[in-house]
Amino acid sequence: MHTAAPVPAASAGGPAPDWAERTATLLEAVRARGPLVHCITNTVVQNVTANVLLALGASAAMVDVVTEAGPFARVADALLVNTGTPHAEPRAAALEAAVAAVEAGTPWVLDPVAVGSLPVRTALARDLLALHPTVLRGNASEVLAVLGASAGGRGVDSTVGTDDARHAAQDASDGRRVAAVAVSGPVDLLVAPGIGAVRVANGTELLTRITGGGCALGAVVAAFTAVSPGDAGAAAVAATAVHTIAAELAAREAGGPGTFQPLFLDRLASLSPEDVVREARITVEAPAVAA
Amino acid sequence: MHTAAPVPAASAGGPAPDWAERTATLLEAVRARGPLVHCITNTVVQNVTANVLLALGASAAMVDVVTEAGPFARVADALLVNTGTPHAEPRAAALEAAVAAVEAGTPWVLDPVAVGSLPVRTALARDLLALHPTVLRGNASEVLAVLGASAGGRGVDSTVGTDDARHAAQDASDGRRVAAVAVSGPVDLLVAPGIGAVRVANGTELLTRITGGGCALGAVVAAFTAVSPGDAGAAAVAATAVHTIAAELAAREAGGPGTFQPLFLDRLASLSPEDVVREARITVEAPAVAA
Amino acid sequence: MHTAAPVPAASAGGPAPDWAERTATLLEAVRARGPLVHCITNTVVQNVTANVLLALGASAAMVDVVTEAGPFARVADALLVNTGTPHAEPRAAALEAAVAAVEAGTPWVLDPVAVGSLPVRTALARDLLALHPTVLRGNASEVLAVLGASAGGRGVDSTVGTDDARHAAQDASDGRRVAAVAVSGPVDLLVAPGIGAVRVANGTELLTRITGGGCALGAVVAAFTAVSPGDAGAAAVAATAVHTIAAELAAREAGGPGTFQPLFLDRLASLSPEDVVREARITVEAPAVAA
Repeated sequence: MHTAAPVPAASAGGPAPDWAERTATLLEAVRARGPLVHCITNTVVQNVTANVLLALGASAAMVDVVTEAGPFARVADALLVNTGTPHAEPRAAALEAAVAAVEAGTPWVLDPVAVGSLPVRTALARDLLALHPTVLRGNASEVLAVLGASAGGRGVDSTVGTDDARHAAQDASDGRRVAAVAVSGPVDLLVAPGIGAVRVANGTELLTRITGGGCALGAVVAAFTAVSPGDAGAAAVAATAVHTIAAELAAREAGGPGTFQPLFLDRLASLSPEDVVREARITVEAPAVAA
Repeated sequence: MHTAAPVPAASAGGPAPDWAERTATLLEAVRARGPLVHCITNTVVQNVTANVLLALGASAAMVDVVTEAGPFARVADALLVNTGTPHAEPRAAALEAAVAAVEAGTPWVLDPVAVGSLPVRTALARDLLALHPTVLRGNASEVLAVLGASAGGRGVDSTVGTDDARHAAQDASDGRRVAAVAVSGPVDLLVAPGIGAVRVANGTELLTRITGGGCALGAVVAAFTAVSPGDAGAAAVAATAVHTIAAELAAREAGGPGTFQPLFLDRLASLSPEDVVREARITVEAPAVAA
Repeated sequence: MHTAAPVPAASAGGPAPDWAERTATLLEAVRARGPLVHCITNTVVQNVTANVLLALGASAAMVDVVTEAGPFARVADALLVNTGTPHAEPRAAALEAAVAAVEAGTPWVLDPVAVGSLPVRTALARDLLALHPTVLRGNASEVLAVLGASAGGRGVDSTVGTDDARHAAQDASDGRRVAAVAVSGPVDLLVAPGIGAVRVANGTELLTRITGGGCALGAVVAAFTAVSPGDAGAAAVAATAVHTIAAELAAREAGGPGTFQPLFLDRLASLSPEDVVREARITVEAPAVAA
């Protein structure tokens, strides 16, 4: 469904300023189009997720009841499914929406929050993964756990490093289980066929001192997939860069995790293409050669 | 149940400074009484809704389980029912609460979020409308859809203008389906028998860049109905003016949609009668003469 | 399960600077350990509760579905159960979690929000109380109602004073129904065997002008129980002092209830042991002598 779009030439290990330019272009596309992002996400972060999407210039709708979720996923520009509070009703709605998204060609993001030892969300996330999300986003523990490569962390915090998830992510995207994988951490790792492994070194520790810093990124990735058809890797890189650059700029003004949050939304709303190009710290490696 | 209270003389099409004075008086009444507003609202905006009510000087209680909702609606000073995330349990609680509110004479507001093509909330909103809410509040798409006049928008944003809903709103209030209708938009439109069509031109575009800007207004309208018995139109006008003036003042200081939110709550809490009189941009038309 | 730890000498009625020092020490212990607090709490305050825990230096996980809640309560460092929005699924999860916490020795806090005349949460809170929470935290109305001493308030605000709950709290902790009771009010009252009645006079009226001011304190108490094994009274005192001192410092800078919230999180994150010692207004009475 997602055909390959041109990707920038990748210079192994070095700086890749073309990704910064591309991120700036995709940010402008999000603002121009204002994609409607259908979110089925946990109740802890619904509010901040909607506010992040609105600040970005997208729209948000939390439609998580059965018989509404499927039809809505068909008309939305993108879908986010997050497993954070997997009650029975949104669980069924999540599967209904994902099936409809796949049928309608709506790009969608799976965010397997706290998957691993917790049985309900782990079963749900694996059922969702079997439907081939456009992007899988999580921390390293979550990504490894949903891909079946480890038992996951305790709670929502990762117990392994981003690079520990690299091979599992590469295998998943090479094998077309997903079109791209976004592994969040101190340096974010984005993996997709054609782009190899891209690293975004922007961000701030304050993103881990608020709830929803990662969950909202899942929604931002969804918004970017709506303006990057057929190139989930580019959407994942651009979304991650925009999210973490805005956070980094907000952190410079913030007095702590509390004032960071409104400033982060302000910076998301005001972030200019020039800001992106100036601040982005994106590096790219050539795709690993298969043995 | 709601008998007519005196309404100010309406001068067709011209400025109506008496509405500003009346709004200031009702604001002081809300603060003096501190009405307890029973909210059955969507999980995305529960927090901001409660905070808006508390900043205003009212109290909030989110009682949305069956067997609690009905008895609570009887003792609360006002009730808000919002259809934003219509899960089975709060859906049943909403109907239980509305029936109890009608029986007990508790004024109540229906906010038909995203009603139209989404079947669960649309059926729920129509069942609730059949119970004759005191005030119906929504954007033009939602108001038209719940009144059966159109299919509604896509998601939570209106696809038609405020004035497109004027005749449907007038018909609904003239026919006593509701006591008043509040149509939110760049200029808000308030319609009720006796007051004709009142327009409030305050506000800020930032209210559309945060989640809950409209949903919280539904709760503010509910709070004002508690101090304006028998005059739902006055409650709708005053609530809309207070909400949008506070937002407008906050927007002057805000650096974006993030810092706007705490400043909005501060301005709601500190808004003086003088601020209201100075800032209000309220105009009124004579009631349309029936054919 | 909770054996008595040394408590500071209590001087009847006078100032007790040792409690300020002890609070500072426990705050540092929370930050050093970063306890994972399992929260089953109402949907209105999930976000602010998580943010308060993160600002404090703890971790939060909202695991409120059946079959996940029990196992998670065994591995978490502490558990909070709050009855604010008692839907069927989190209700069952709350009981599952509490039983598991008791079996595993995980300290846990019961916050009986709005218990009294509302039947679902009142039955739930009494079932939970029968499992002997480590700490019972609420306002005076809620504490009296769950202990069977009164019918409770209307909604979430207390209709009686803190001291009205003193004897019921003393009886409950003396009789080992709970290890400690935290009664919130303008002056907070903490009661446990060995510490007598401790009063914390810090805080700000702004804590009552935002939603979750009390609910989040329940989570903070849970975090402190994780670093104060066997001494629930000390955890309750220290958590209350830290929470209310941070709030008091934030209120000095805030322009209203809106800007208070981010500043409160900033102050929680930056609060130093010196701040605690300088600002704490804690007094202690000798335990009442049994007749």
